[in-house]
Amino acid sequence: MLKTADHLYLQIADNLEQLITRQVLKMGDKLPSVRNLSEEKGVSMSTAFQAYYHLESKGMIESRPKSGYYVTFCPRRMPEIPKQTEAVKKPSEVTVHEMISRMYLHNSNPEILKFSSAVFPVAQLPTAKMTKAMVQAIHRLPNGGLMYDTLQGNEDLRRQIARMSIGWGGAVTEDDIVIAAGCSDALSLCLSAVTQPGDTIAVESPTYYGSLQLAENLGLKVLEIPTHPLTGVDLEYLNKAIPKFKIRACLFVTNFTNPLGACMPDSHKQELVRILEKYDIPLIEDDIYGDMYFGKERPGVCKTFDKNGLVLLCNSFSKSLAPGYRVGWTLPGRYKEKVLRIKRNRAISSPSLPSAAIACFLENGRYEYHLRSMRQALHTQFMRHLQAISDYFPEDTCVTRPGGGFVCWIELNPKINAFELYEQSLKHKVIFAPGRIFSLQDRYNNCLRISYNNAWSKTVEDGLKTIGKLARKLMV
Amino acid sequence: MLKTADHLYLQIADNLEQLITRQVLKMGDKLPSVRNLSEEKGVSMSTAFQAYYHLESKGMIESRPKSGYYVTFCPRRMPEIPKQTEAVKKPSEVTVHEMISRMYLHNSNPEILKFSSAVFPVAQLPTAKMTKAMVQAIHRLPNGGLMYDTLQGNEDLRRQIARMSIGWGGAVTEDDIVIAAGCSDALSLCLSAVTQPGDTIAVESPTYYGSLQLAENLGLKVLEIPTHPLTGVDLEYLNKAIPKFKIRACLFVTNFTNPLGACMPDSHKQELVRILEKYDIPLIEDDIYGDMYFGKERPGVCKTFDKNGLVLLCNSFSKSLAPGYRVGWTLPGRYKEKVLRIKRNRAISSPSLPSAAIACFLENGRYEYHLRSMRQALHTQFMRHLQAISDYFPEDTCVTRPGGGFVCWIELNPKINAFELYEQSLKHKVIFAPGRIFSLQDRYNNCLRISYNNAWSKTVEDGLKTIGKLARKLMV
Repeated sequence: MLKTADHLYLQIADNLEQLITRQVLKMGDKLPSVRNLSEEKGVSMSTAFQAYYHLESKGMIESRPKSGYYVTFCPRRMPEIPKQTEAVKKPSEVTVHEMISRMYLHNSNPEILKFSSAVFPVAQLPTAKMTKAMVQAIHRLPNGGLMYDTLQGNEDLRRQIARMSIGWGGAVTEDDIVIAAGCSDALSLCLSAVTQPGDTIAVESPTYYGSLQLAENLGLKVLEIPTHPLTGVDLEYLNKAIPKFKIRACLFVTNFTNPLGACMPDSHKQELVRILEKYDIPLIEDDIYGDMYFGKERPGVCKTFDKNGLVLLCNSFSKSLAPGYRVGWTLPGRYKEKVLRIKRNRAISSPSLPSAAIACFLENGRYEYHLRSMRQALHTQFMRHLQAISDYFPEDTCVTRPGGGFVCWIELNPKINAFELYEQSLKHKVIFAPGRIFSLQDRYNNCLRISYNNAWSKTVEDGLKTIGKLARKLMV
Repeated sequence: MLKTADHLYLQIADNLEQLITRQVLKMGDKLPSVRNLSEEKGVSMSTAFQAYYHLESKGMIESRPKSGYYVTFCPRRMPEIPKQTEAVKKPSEVTVHEMISRMYLHNSNPEILKFSSAVFPVAQLPTAKMTKAMVQAIHRLPNGGLMYDTLQGNEDLRRQIARMSIGWGGAVTEDDIVIAAGCSDALSLCLSAVTQPGDTIAVESPTYYGSLQLAENLGLKVLEIPTHPLTGVDLEYLNKAIPKFKIRACLFVTNFTNPLGACMPDSHKQELVRILEKYDIPLIEDDIYGDMYFGKERPGVCKTFDKNGLVLLCNSFSKSLAPGYRVGWTLPGRYKEKVLRIKRNRAISSPSLPSAAIACFLENGRYEYHLRSMRQALHTQFMRHLQAISDYFPEDTCVTRPGGGFVCWIELNPKINAFELYEQSLKHKVIFAPGRIFSLQDRYNNCLRISYNNAWSKTVEDGLKTIGKLARKLMV
């Protein structure tokens, strides 16, 4: 957890940031010198410098040689936040998305600048430490991990996950946890455990295309629930939709939804659990972005409010540590036995070594430290991307304001077809995720998802400039 | 491949074995001395000795101190082979098997002697070499394998699998192969790719309970096809059943079925492919035991005869190398794109390191050598188990004669309930797989599956003796 005393410079930076966003300090204003700031706040020169350095990395101020620091960020110039998404008339049969295959194809081309994938660049992952942990795991497991893992998964890892659950207010034991092959696999196991083919499930709208495809795999129907870019799914609507559309389960990202970046307030989470209890239906809670918050504290999860085992919480280490290890987990509540049976039928057990290696890494206690630097990097990167979108995209562009995670959602002028924009951008070797793939309805054609996972650079800025320029052309 | 010239002693041993099974040499007969045998056959003393040693390890002869070698095996005393299994009236809805969960529970108890699991003992797996291969893989993959593998899976591994396909008469390239998390996962992906919930698939009867549970996961119906203990599924029956029961896909183990140990002759395999073509339905061909043959040559697969991409061949390295690595593969023929899409939706990609490690192991070229010693060990173990069953089980017991694989099937007197026998044996800390779990019908209640994966020992012999004794008691 972030200790305030450890980060005096952050307090000062936050303070200044508020002054800038409230426009007390305006674009172009000169800031006090480092010496003056240190005297004013009663902190060391180095702390004052760190505060400026932090704001500069976020793109809110700039240092001009031999002159000092100046405000470069103007909230008034920032794009609007999109409105809550609209309701649909009926659940959709899941269809195939050739668009997605096309995007995946381009995603594997190293020559293309990708705003399309929500994966942290490998250069910023703790490669050396993970390799060390893997070698440790080979020596720790009997027979070098050659034999089957237990069905529930590596016990050391489950103990570490239980320990970390304090972070989101959980009080779980290793026995409550089931290891899976990444978050997708956890979601797939849970969805399979709580539904029958032909059932209808509720998802956010727009929603992660991977979730839509999981539903397709299982022969499920999907009802897209209107979703607010800041607070998540519309609970009033959901409350009426459950009996009306005979919804059997919900599949929601409660913190920093993909693609909107919405985060359900605690009060909504509590209310959502009340609704689940009322209708006795389960929630598969995808919390894969929960640890990537920009604010002071980790947002909670619905699972904390769940007294009846109706919430199946899913998460993984793919975003934060080792995508290629494919290690995720679920707390399946009352569905544990069913989830275990499906896991056994599909794959007998998880691969032994990757789970053990992540357990070793977590035991070394450097995870929280690593997460903290990831959060700062992502926050900074988001601010930079937002600024550039504001600078280069058409004036009527709306952008969401995620409080965490990897992605934001852009609503362009309805005249613009984002898939056409995709094809145009591709010619310039820049891609993003077209909005259309985040729904089963024919909607979001003027939207796109931008992942700010790339470290800020001239190349990244030029990429956004290119998309913005092409978007302008498409408006004419 | 086994080169005859390399194994002169095997030729001699085979010769003697034939004389024993044809009862030219009878139980109790004294064999020529090692010196005489060497002179008679014109081979070295050491080759003659090796031949006897080989037969002794199979339990066919024994050495009596200061006297020489004697025949201990009598084919006349051997139990009968069970008859072909019977047809069912209609496809079954898949139901849950609490019996299986119970068996899995006991499987994880180290104090129990297990004839219930078809896994090679870890002591006989190449642990040190696999660990070396894993360390090599960590260094070979960029970023120590931290990033996502490609959707289709590790290319080096696919190249090795393509190379090995010569063994079963294949001529495939790495591009035809998709890596999966073990054979179960490969079967699950393929089954999901070729069926819709509610469809009916054909399986052998008795059939591996894991396949039945996979079908349950996917909401499929199952038609059990009568199966001969030597030649596999009854093709004439299948040919009529496909249109009658609207069968959409077949899921068969063509070599050394689990639990019968049947191996479809090449002519049957060819005929099966002809039937598939006639009705244009796919076959998921589970060849997980194909490499574990006892004879001189690897049996073929249906895939060799498949000109239209209707066969989805599945296999893994779990039986032969590293169960805990969870690495398998499929050649999905014309269903490749569908299989890839389902794989992506479920798990994005396979874990990077385990596949890469197995590729490194295979490149070292010691795999065929390792397989050869596994085959010999399994063959010997089967002979020993068969002899003990013949010695200790009731006289009217029937036993199948697998030509490879890990398991044989025992048919007891219909008065005996094998699950009751299971519970009785459990009290003596010995378990096996009760026959009932290999069908969705209420049948095979007097049958059991014995896995001869344990290296032969007094403990193993005593375990079979215990089961035999308890079976006799249940007949009264």
